Amino acid sequence: MTAGVTFARGFRAAGVTAGFKPSGQPDLALLAGPDGTTAAGLFTTNRVAAAPVHLSRARLGAGRGTAVLVNSGQANAATGARGDDDALAATEGAARLLELDVEDVLACSTGVIGEPLHMPQMLAALPGLVESLSQNGGGTFARAIMTTDTVSKQATVERGPYRVGGAAKGVGMISPNLATMLAFLTTDAPVGRDHLQRLADEQLKPRFNALTVDACTSTNDAVLVLASGAAGGDPVTPGTDAWSAVEGAVAEVGESLVSQLIHDAEGVSHVLLIDVDGARDDDEARVVAKAVADSPLVKAAAFGRDPNPGRVLQAVGSSGADVDAERVDIWIGGTQLVVAGTIPLDYFADDGLRSAAGAAMHAPEIVVRVRLGEGPGRSRALGCDLSYEYVRINGEYTT
Amino acid sequence: MTAGVTFARGFRAAGVTAGFKPSGQPDLALLAGPDGTTAAGLFTTNRVAAAPVHLSRARLGAGRGTAVLVNSGQANAATGARGDDDALAATEGAARLLELDVEDVLACSTGVIGEPLHMPQMLAALPGLVESLSQNGGGTFARAIMTTDTVSKQATVERGPYRVGGAAKGVGMISPNLATMLAFLTTDAPVGRDHLQRLADEQLKPRFNALTVDACTSTNDAVLVLASGAAGGDPVTPGTDAWSAVEGAVAEVGESLVSQLIHDAEGVSHVLLIDVDGARDDDEARVVAKAVADSPLVKAAAFGRDPNPGRVLQAVGSSGADVDAERVDIWIGGTQLVVAGTIPLDYFADDGLRSAAGAAMHAPEIVVRVRLGEGPGRSRALGCDLSYEYVRINGEYTT
Repeated sequence: MTAGVTFARGFRAAGVTAGFKPSGQPDLALLAGPDGTTAAGLFTTNRVAAAPVHLSRARLGAGRGTAVLVNSGQANAATGARGDDDALAATEGAARLLELDVEDVLACSTGVIGEPLHMPQMLAALPGLVESLSQNGGGTFARAIMTTDTVSKQATVERGPYRVGGAAKGVGMISPNLATMLAFLTTDAPVGRDHLQRLADEQLKPRFNALTVDACTSTNDAVLVLASGAAGGDPVTPGTDAWSAVEGAVAEVGESLVSQLIHDAEGVSHVLLIDVDGARDDDEARVVAKAVADSPLVKAAAFGRDPNPGRVLQAVGSSGADVDAERVDIWIGGTQLVVAGTIPLDYFADDGLRSAAGAAMHAPEIVVRVRLGEGPGRSRALGCDLSYEYVRINGEYTT
Repeated sequence: MTAGVTFARGFRAAGVTAGFKPSGQPDLALLAGPDGTTAAGLFTTNRVAAAPVHLSRARLGAGRGTAVLVNSGQANAATGARGDDDALAATEGAARLLELDVEDVLACSTGVIGEPLHMPQMLAALPGLVESLSQNGGGTFARAIMTTDTVSKQATVERGPYRVGGAAKGVGMISPNLATMLAFLTTDAPVGRDHLQRLADEQLKPRFNALTVDACTSTNDAVLVLASGAAGGDPVTPGTDAWSAVEGAVAEVGESLVSQLIHDAEGVSHVLLIDVDGARDDDEARVVAKAVADSPLVKAAAFGRDPNPGRVLQAVGSSGADVDAERVDIWIGGTQLVVAGTIPLDYFADDGLRSAAGAAMHAPEIVVRVRLGEGPGRSRALGCDLSYEYVRINGEYTT
């Protein structure tokens, strides 16, 4: 797909090889909107945040952001004052070539933590990068932001007069020494900055936060949304049909990117969809769903295709939520394996419930449903199994 | 070692094969103190707690507890009302044979979650169990409480006139479908119930809570302390030399059991000792130490013998503690790899800091020190690496 972030009108993108990665793969990307582009974003909650996170957060906070410079190879995290200087210099270089104020260029980095940006290569590559900006550059952009991703991740949705596109990368919250989940969404709908941030908060935050490969929040996570307004028409504001259209399209692109991310998680052989309902509120449901999706024992059971209700129950009970153990029901696939906190005796019988649930464990997506009671709260977490391959990628790559 | 829980005078113990385990290994254990024995305990914080946890917590709360009946094979968790009935009936059977009030018999179970206790075998085995109680039974007790433990775990300490002994089991917070860390400490010092609980809270709770194999709190965890008073003399009360002696001995036995537990953790090839200091208070240090010890990326790096400061920093930053990123220092072994939040450039040089720290990753115990600032708070967490073997034990055992 060549579209992705350039599906929405007004945006140009490019990806080139600057030489940050030993592999020689593309590693420097640029996304640029027209004058008047608005931007919003979500950033890592890690207290150890990378230099580009600090820079982008500040510029977005000041209402700026027309273009985004993204490099893979070095995360520019734990790089001290030098890291801030490098992020500033890189965006200055891009701004000059783009004829933008430096404050309008945001930055994202992904790669090795602690290693400084390779600035000579960065500055040498910028002219070619800006030169190759194209309305069809979404595909090269998506490829240049990859680290250990095995496929590039893009999505596009059209709703009425508006287009929304996106690209994302990330396979572990930190993959082999490499930090980060990054996502970029663009729309040609005319959306003011505050409303764009509201879309990010309401439609993207819960979706990206539902994603967990290994419970590790990286130093560089960022989701950026840019609106070019190139579709024309009045500003899109809440409560209108236009808002619903844009909102739905943003949600759908977000949903697609999140799904693509978890399916490319490090060492994944099964995706876990943990649906919690009957909670007091959505927050309680979210805590429980995340706890189940993050449990190494649930994840290892998924790898072993073991329909293990005791491990799900263990994770629910120790989630920190105020769970009433005697009201918990659990299904794996379509088979109920916990009834009011109790595992039915039939689970242990030959050809019993365990066999019935076992079939569901062979599917690429394993659905676990947890009902906590009769409350209105619900949430879904997206996780994956814990495989030999995850340990190999994250443990053995240095030996 | 035959001593363990029977090292302290006044206690008898036994372990027999009741037939709960398909392997035919010993699986039913009993510990009994003399009249006047006091008891205290610590239990799982999991909201899904096993029937014996509810039973023992209630009896301790009522000031009771002279003996403890322990089975391995079935956890008696998620077994509903039947589980409560079974725990009651088992302790009734033991109490009758021991000529104790049923309220004085505590219970612990470890094994498969959801599977009911095998009551016919239980009731049939109790007479032989009680008959074999012996002042030298500590060793058979320690073996009968094992599940997938590869070695039994015991410790003894003598301080002045007082003896303290103990036994423990547990290799994952839940190992292959098997719930639990259990620990039993005995002393012959005359210690009142409230003071015994204080020893448990002050000396054992922080030590056992510092232990993490996989961040999974089981449904059955319990630490029980029994004092027989058989050493004689006045009741031991805080502020005396006798108290210091007992306190120190309890701490030392606890420390030894915790160390034995982590060294037998599922799939362990390296133990992780995470020392945090300079925190605002001990609680903050504990949160950060646990976050590092629980990080799958830090654990996988330990398995791969990769001295990876970025991953430690990532875990510190996302621990939830209010960390000042620019004040964090990190050492692996004796080598400082993060200075004021920054990874020194020399880390990436050939034969640089990375090589120096690499040697420390080959030790059986890998020591990671994190300094958060200048505060007085400090804590140590004990963890282990994430190995292929952990995934195999917890994932592949069913396939």
